[in-house]
Order: sequence, then C-alpha cells, then structure tokens
Amino acid sequence: MDRNNREALLAGKEWEKRQTVVFLSDFGMADGAVSAMHGVANRVSNSLLLDDLTHEIPQFNIWEASYRLMQAMTYWAQGTVFVCVVDPGVGSDRKSIVALTKSGHLVVTPDNGTLTHIAQQVGIVEVREISEVFNRLEGSQKSYTFFGRDVYAYTGARLASGALAFEDVGPVLGSLVKLKIEKGRLENEHTLIGAIDILDTRYGSLWTNISGDFIERMNLTYGQLINVTIAKDGRTVFGYPIKLCRSFTEVSQGEPLIYVNSLLNLAIALNQGSFSSTYGIGTGEGWIISLTVI
Amino acid sequence: MDRNNREALLAGKEWEKRQTVVFLSDFGMADGAVSAMHGVANRVSNSLLLDDLTHEIPQFNIWEASYRLMQAMTYWAQGTVFVCVVDPGVGSDRKSIVALTKSGHLVVTPDNGTLTHIAQQVGIVEVREISEVFNRLEGSQKSYTFFGRDVYAYTGARLASGALAFEDVGPVLGSLVKLKIEKGRLENEHTLIGAIDILDTRYGSLWTNISGDFIERMNLTYGQLINVTIAKDGRTVFGYPIKLCRSFTEVSQGEPLIYVNSLLNLAIALNQGSFSSTYGIGTGEGWIISLTVI
Amino acid sequence: MDRNNREALLAGKEWEKRQTVVFLSDFGMADGAVSAMHGVANRVSNSLLLDDLTHEIPQFNIWEASYRLMQAMTYWAQGTVFVCVVDPGVGSDRKSIVALTKSGHLVVTPDNGTLTHIAQQVGIVEVREISEVFNRLEGSQKSYTFFGRDVYAYTGARLASGALAFEDVGPVLGSLVKLKIEKGRLENEHTLIGAIDILDTRYGSLWTNISGDFIERMNLTYGQLINVTIAKDGRTVFGYPIKLCRSFTEVSQGEPLIYVNSLLNLAIALNQGSFSSTYGIGTGEGWIISLTVI
Repeated sequence: MDRNNREALLAGKEWEKRQTVVFLSDFGMADGAVSAMHGVANRVSNSLLLDDLTHEIPQFNIWEASYRLMQAMTYWAQGTVFVCVVDPGVGSDRKSIVALTKSGHLVVTPDNGTLTHIAQQVGIVEVREISEVFNRLEGSQKSYTFFGRDVYAYTGARLASGALAFEDVGPVLGSLVKLKIEKGRLENEHTLIGAIDILDTRYGSLWTNISGDFIERMNLTYGQLINVTIAKDGRTVFGYPIKLCRSFTEVSQGEPLIYVNSLLNLAIALNQGSFSSTYGIGTGEGWIISLTVI
Repeated sequence: MDRNNREALLAGKEWEKRQTVVFLSDFGMADGAVSAMHGVANRVSNSLLLDDLTHEIPQFNIWEASYRLMQAMTYWAQGTVFVCVVDPGVGSDRKSIVALTKSGHLVVTPDNGTLTHIAQQVGIVEVREISEVFNRLEGSQKSYTFFGRDVYAYTGARLASGALAFEDVGPVLGSLVKLKIEKGRLENEHTLIGAIDILDTRYGSLWTNISGDFIERMNLTYGQLINVTIAKDGRTVFGYPIKLCRSFTEVSQGEPLIYVNSLLNLAIALNQGSFSSTYGIGTGEGWIISLTVI
Repeated sequence: MDRNNREALLAGKEWEKRQTVVFLSDFGMADGAVSAMHGVANRVSNSLLLDDLTHEIPQFNIWEASYRLMQAMTYWAQGTVFVCVVDPGVGSDRKSIVALTKSGHLVVTPDNGTLTHIAQQVGIVEVREISEVFNRLEGSQKSYTFFGRDVYAYTGARLASGALAFEDVGPVLGSLVKLKIEKGRLENEHTLIGAIDILDTRYGSLWTNISGDFIERMNLTYGQLINVTIAKDGRTVFGYPIKLCRSFTEVSQGEPLIYVNSLLNLAIALNQGSFSSTYGIGTGEGWIISLTVI
C-alpha cells in the first residue's frame, strides 16, 4: 500500500468537504429497506447529502455491483463515501470493511468481492475491518441485524460526517476478497482473451474487457471473420466465427457481429437480437472469451 | 394523547434540525408527479433535503403504505417530515391531516389509514386537520387540484422549513381513520392468531405479525406439524398442516414451511416457490391467519 | 426574446438561490449512468442539491421528455437547472444548448425538441449554444464522450453553482429545434383539433391538448355522441362516434368514452380497457385527433 498517497488523501483539504453518502444495493426500491438506510445516515447527521448509485443490481450479483461501482465512483468528489450492500454471505463469517481508494473515496461493504474492479482499475490504498461491536446503530444488537442499515449505513454516515475517523474503523486488513477477472490481453500472436464484464441490458450485447486498441495492434481488418470461443468454468458454450464490423448495419438482421462499444472495448451483439439470451451467455466469474484470428 | 411528550417533542432541540422531507406514494417514477411534489417543496425552501421512501406502493394499497412507513420512518432523524400520498378517496370528504408521532416525526397524509401501523407500534401524540383553504400552493385553487403536490408537499415543506408551526396546521382531531389489523396474539392454549402484514415480494412468502417468541412460550418443537388456517373476510382460503422449520432446506422443493423471518416474526413459505400466488393469499384488512397445535 | 424579462431573471435575487440540479433522461436506473452524472455535478460543487425528474422516458422519445419537463419544471424554485438527456442524435451535428425560460429556469439539453412543450406553454427568453470545447469535464476529450455526463451534467452543475454565468455558455442561438405539435383548438363551428400529448400509462387513455372548456363553449351535452377521428401522418387510424361522459360508469365495460381528465383537457378511454393498445394509437409528432359534432 502507498503510504504517502494515504497520508495525502487523509490529510488533504479534500477531506474537509466529504459529506456525501452514495448507496448501492440489490434491494430494489419497492420496500422500505433503502429508505431505512438513508434514515440511519440522516440521523447520524442531517447535513449529509444522500444519493444512490443503483439498487437494481440483480440479487446477490457481486460482480455487477463491483462493475457498477467502478463505472460511477470516480466521477464523485473525493471524500464521498459509498455504502455497497450486495451481501449473499450475511450471517457467515465474511468481514465488514472500509476501503480507502487511490481516487480518495471510501467504500463501506462486506468483504466479498465488491471491490474487485476498483482494486484492478483504480487501486486500493488501505482496507480496515469494521469492528462491528462499536460501529453499529445503538440498540441494533438486541434483535435481528440488518447489516446494510445497522452497520454499513451507520458507519458510512459517521465517516462522511467526520464523527468517525478512517483510522478508528478497526484494524488494517492485509488482503481483500476479490472475484477472479480474466484480464483482457493479447495471449499470443493470434489470440485475445478476456472477461465478459457486463451485458448491455437493453440489447443483450456482451461487453468484454478487451480493448478495441488491439484491432490496430493486431492489424485486423473490418469485415474479416474472427473465431469467437466463449467458455464457462472451462466448458465451451459458444464457438463460431463472427465478423468484425464498424456498425450494426454491416450484418443482416439476426446475424452476430464484433464491434467497438462506447467504452472503446470489444463487444459482441446480434443485430436486432439478444446475443446473451440467444446463446445463454452470462457475465462475471468463470466466463472467458477468446478471439482468434482465422 | 400524551401532553408532556407533545411539549417535549415540539419544544425540544431536535426540532431546530428538522429540514428533511421524505415522500411516499403509489405514483411510480415514470411521469413527472413525484418531481412536481419535490419541486413544490424545493420552492418553499431550497435548503430542504428531499428524499423518497418508495413510490412503488401498489396503486391505492393503503395497508402497504402504512406498513412501509412503519418499516422506515423511525430510522430518520426526529423532526423529519413524511409526505404520504396513497389516496383512493381523493375528491371525497376524507380529511387531510398532519400527525405528530411519539418518535418525534411528522406525517402529512390523507386520513385514510396510512397511520395504522404507526399508531399501533410507535404511537401518535396529536393529529391536526389541514385547513386546505390556507395550506395550499398559491394559485392551485383555480383549477384541478393535485393534493399530493398542492396541499401535502406544500404543507410538509412549510413544516420542515419552519414556515408553518404544527399548531397552525388546523384544528386538533380527536380520532384517526385506521385499518383493522388482527393483532398477533396467543388466542388460547393451542392457537395463535394474527394478520398477514406483507408479502416478501421476491419470494411470495407471507410475513405475519405473530412473534416468533411464541415458539418458546408454547413449547413448540422444530419439525412438528401445525395446522394453518388462512381466511379472508371470514371465508377459509387455506387449511392444512405445515411443518415448523429452522431453515428452508428441511422441506423438499415445493413443500410449505413455517419459519422465523428476519423481523423475528412467524412466516410461511413454499421452498423455491411462491406461497402467496400458489394459494391466492393476500395481505391487509380482512386476512386472518391462525396456527393451531395439532 | 424579451430582454427586460431576461435582465430581471438574470439579475434578480432568485438567482442567488439557484443551487439545485434536476436530471431527466431515458437511461433507466439499472446501471451507473445516472450516478455518474450526479457524481460529476457533485464534484463541481458538493453543496449542490441533486434530484431527478424521471429516468424512465422510453428510449429516444423526445416528445415524452418534452412533455414530462413541462409537467414538473415550473413547480421548482426559480434558478433550478434541469439537465435533460434524451439524445438519439448523439454523434450527429445536433447542437448542445442552455435555455433560459420565462419561468426563470435553465435547461441544459441537446437541441432536438426537448423544449417543445416549454416553448409553447411557458416561453423561452434566450438560448445559448454550449461551446463544447470549454464546457466539458476535464479529461473527457481524450476518449469516448458520454455527453450527458461530460458536457450536460458538468455545464448544468457549473451554472447551478455559479462557476459559469449563463452569458459565458456560448453564443446566442436565434432558433430552437421544435417538434410539431398540433395546437388544441376550435377549427370551425363543429370541429375540435389537437394533439395526443401523452398516454395515461396506467390505463392507456389518450390525453389530448384540447381544453375541456370547449364543452361549454360549443354547448356540448353530456351523453351526446361525437365523431372522433385519429390520424397518424395523414392516414386515418380510428374513426367512430364516441359518447361524451362525466364518468366512466356511464358506459359499459369495454366501451369507449370522451371525458375531462385531471388536467381539465379532453381525454379518450375504454372503460376497464386500454384505448391506445386496442386501437394502436400513439402520442407525439404526426398524431392528430379531431372531434366533430354529429
């Protein structure tokens, strides 16, 4: 961990401004759970600004929570505190943590992989385990604990309001639980390998973490066929050649194509169809995509 | 009503901090209705914090609004003002009210049962009828009145900002419209009776208002069968024995079980199925569940 | 444009209070896009209040965005900045603009028709084109530009926080792209003509922009039949007589009726059915409805 960066981030002027808490979960908005979390933060300090990243993460999908956090977090002011609760392991011995990122944000979350994309693409300066005995809403020990509300929202709000210093959260943790992400890379002269980061939910396209820059580096030509293999946990699910295109109009309706998406990564779609549902392709741990020049 | 509590709540330091308005409705978020309510509050004072409990209450479902309000309200800072608009009786002679709760919150709502769960589980200190002639957005008399916007959001924001004192809302009301809730209770040596408070929307489980403590008090044993009868308006809809379990894995897929839910109340589910849709069970007024030791 | 009004709006005390940014888009809330926009605004100034009009505009539906903006905007405090991003033309040469409305609000949006209803019903004082080279998030030139985040949210937040004056946005634009709205009007002694502004989404009723006042002005009688013709781009889609009713109960289940809706305009519904889906009627440009006394 980068001690100088840590000191600068914690000592810097930016921290005086921290007063926003942003919530992320798989709770949906239909019941009162998100509002109870906001309420706990509001009761810690009613000068805090409260906002939401999304609460529509598919239930227990840590990978998507990790990806969405990475997608939005760095746009917020330094010192913003994120409370991220996708917690299939609630009740197990999974730890509760606060991470200080290289971008100067704090993330309060169960230690279950929510920080995977942030760790890889932004960087983590220090992680502390939340001492749950002290860092929890008064009275919440007595009965059923809703961790998102009683521990995470409470701790996040106290950090944001200055009532709790990062150093007082609990002991430093040496490591972090991370999901396994296949790094987007040139494997050999002819083959690109990577992960399926996310589905473009409106269209069912696969968004890989393989940079579109490889088109130039490998001297690929628009219009050429490339062998696409997609495997889940080592089992091949899809294996056909697909055309590399500049735009969807270069293939007929229902035909697949490889293209460069709005994040400038390689993506795979069916023109006017859903690639993911047609071929049963998912995202996250265990999914590997490889593209081989024919 | 508890006058001492009332004075303390109204005089106390907590009230100086009140500046948040939280909205609850059955409007959904697809049109501009919720934003118009936020806007009215913002125009009363743009230093108010505006938040939402949920706007996904099923249309006209006062019971669920009442339950969700109870689920989240007490977590917010004292002095927070709740604007709750599930109003099937708009245009009738139903009253518009502001209630001061024992927890020190204010609720602005039509007097139609929204405060049922709060009255039972938190307590109401005083209710005042909103004099709609004075307490409404300027200009809104002239044409169509959207009460949530023109009366409730406006009055809520003026209360939160200090522009309107609770005493000046209108005359004290002696009583409150309440939905009929079957209290969760031990009816006799062998029988528990209660209401179906809510469905666990993700799974279709029935969450009753009967405390799980009765398992110990009645010396029930995990694994034993208990006769479950569910009636709507006196007509029996379901009547079979169900097994009392510690966890879902103790019954086969598709089999029903009684368990203790995360609120520590008794609940009924189908393992990997929806009890409510399989047997056509709903929640709210008129639904009674009874559990009898065999 | 009204120069005096302009000076008053820009010079007035109201502007000191402007500090709220309200977002409107067709992005949905499932991914991190809306939160990235909020984040950019928060980083410009973390004292800004951030709120949302709706993000559930059907994708690329500029008409509905225009209508929803009109429905909610004027209820907000003067000086509130609206960031409206329904942008099917992203990547084309459509301009990016900020409009000052007669109501004293600012709207940051692509110049594609989002301001149609506001221009007609509220009025526009001045429009300026955003000089995108200067008015964009630092670093966002380098790669893929997400205009809603990098240009619109950024510019809106700088306007709201006072970091950017309206005059410094860019050059004044003489005209505005507007959708074609058929004005609700009395065409001749016997015929009313207008547009279908929006569907009442819960019921599929058609809400026209023809005032219910015409019932009195034309001496129409409740119970009488009126010829209703609906055309899309000149082609007749529906043409039958429908009964003018005070309430839905005056026709049988499944029968159509003309009634006065909650905005005091004429509307058309099927009792307990969806008029729009039964007859394939839509809203927006190209749809004309005419009502002729038989």
